[in-house]
Amino acid sequence: MNLILLAPEEITHDRLARVRDPRRLAHLREVHRARPGDRLTLGVEGGGIGRGELLSLDEHEARFALEEMGQPPPPALPVHLVLALPRPRMLARSLEHVTALGVKRITLLHTRRVEKSYWMSPELAPQKIRTHLVLGLEQARDTRLPEVELAKGFRPFVEDRLPDLLKGRRGLLAHPGMPRACPRGIEDPTLLLVGPEGGFIPWEVERLLEAGCEGIHLGPRILRVETAVTALLSRLF
Amino acid sequence: MNLILLAPEEITHDRLARVRDPRRLAHLREVHRARPGDRLTLGVEGGGIGRGELLSLDEHEARFALEEMGQPPPPALPVHLVLALPRPRMLARSLEHVTALGVKRITLLHTRRVEKSYWMSPELAPQKIRTHLVLGLEQARDTRLPEVELAKGFRPFVEDRLPDLLKGRRGLLAHPGMPRACPRGIEDPTLLLVGPEGGFIPWEVERLLEAGCEGIHLGPRILRVETAVTALLSRLF
Repeated sequence: MNLILLAPEEITHDRLARVRDPRRLAHLREVHRARPGDRLTLGVEGGGIGRGELLSLDEHEARFALEEMGQPPPPALPVHLVLALPRPRMLARSLEHVTALGVKRITLLHTRRVEKSYWMSPELAPQKIRTHLVLGLEQARDTRLPEVELAKGFRPFVEDRLPDLLKGRRGLLAHPGMPRACPRGIEDPTLLLVGPEGGFIPWEVERLLEAGCEGIHLGPRILRVETAVTALLSRLF
Repeated sequence: MNLILLAPEEITHDRLARVRDPRRLAHLREVHRARPGDRLTLGVEGGGIGRGELLSLDEHEARFALEEMGQPPPPALPVHLVLALPRPRMLARSLEHVTALGVKRITLLHTRRVEKSYWMSPELAPQKIRTHLVLGLEQARDTRLPEVELAKGFRPFVEDRLPDLLKGRRGLLAHPGMPRACPRGIEDPTLLLVGPEGGFIPWEVERLLEAGCEGIHLGPRILRVETAVTALLSRLF
C-alpha cells in the first residue's frame, strides 16, 4: 500500500479523512507501523494525490488531516486489454499486475479454451474484482480505477463489439506463432488481445485477424497468462 | 506443463522414459488427461527437446517411447539477475516468472530492507528452489536449469563479487527516480540489479553506482517485485 486510496465519502469538508475498513487499518498498524504525526501518501479515488498527517489510529478508525492533494495520478497506458478469462487465482493476480501497470480498460472474454466453470467463480463478483483493482492502484500510487467488462460469448464480441473497439485503435493479437514480433515502445491507442492458457483456437485467430487485428508473438517461450500480459504491456509501451 | 522435463536417469538406453513422481503423474492424468498413444512434448534436463509416445500411465508410473529429441531449447536471455531476496511467496513466483522468461543466472541478495527472517524461509532450501525453476522450465518448454546463488551480505557482495560480475557485462541498477529510462531491446550481456519492496537505501544505490552500474527506472509507478522483474526483462531484451 504505497498510497492510501480514499473514497470521496471518506473525506469531510474540513479536509479530514476517516478510514474505517479493517484491511487498511490493519495495514497501517502492521505494515506501516504508523503513528500519529506520520505523514503518509493518500489519493482520492478518481482524483489527486497528496500527503496527510495521521491524527489518530485505533482498531476502529484512522483520521488524517489532508494537505495539498493536487498531484495528478501517473499517466495511463493507451490500451484496452481484452483478456481471455483466466482461472480465478490467475485472474486476481493479473488484474493487480495490469492495474499497477496503468491499464484502464479491461474486457474479460470467453473463448473456446476458457473453462466454462470460470464464469461461475466468486472472483468475478464486482466487489471482488474491485478489491484487486484497488490493490493494484495502491501499489502503483494511482487513483483511477480501471473499467472491467465481461464478454461471455466470443462470436457476439467479435461481431458486435470488436468493430467499434478497433475504431481509432491498433488491434494487436498476441498469439504464439504469429509472424511478427511484439513491437516496442509504441504510443498508438491499442486494443491488445491475449488468449487463455492453451491459446486461442485457429478459428478464433482467423476471426480476429479478419476483423483487422495484427498478429504478434513474444518469442518461442510459452508464458503463463500473468507473465505474458506484463511482458506484453512492458514491451509495447 | 508444456514440456515434461526428464532427468537423465529417467531415460533408459532403449529410448524409454519412466516418470514416477506424483506431481507429474497427477498432471498427466488430471490436466493433460493423457492416454496411451498420445504424443507429448518432452525434454531432457540440460539437453534437447522432442516428442514421446505415452505407452502406459497408472498411479505409479508413466512410460514413454522417445522419438527424436534433437531440438535445442529456446535461447537464454543474456542476463545475470541480482534480486534482493523477496518475501517467500513472492520469491517462489518470481523464480517461476524469470525462469520462464529465460534467465539462467540468479543471485539472491541481502539488502537493508530485506527482512532477515526471509533468509530462514524453507523456500530457500535447494530442493524448494529447484521446484520453482522446474515449473518455469516446464511452462516455457526449456530444459536448462538456472543457477541460483545466495549472497547474504550486501557489502561482501559489492566488494568481492560485483567487480567480477561486471567484467564483460553492462550493469543496470533498476531503481525508482534514477535519471534514465530502462533501455529497450538491448543485446549486451547484462547484470540487472533489482531492489526489495521499499527499494535499495541511498547508501546501497551509491555503492552500486560507484561500482559502475547505470541507474535506470521504469517510470513513476511503483511495481511489486514480481511485476517489475518481468517488466524489466521484457523491455530490456
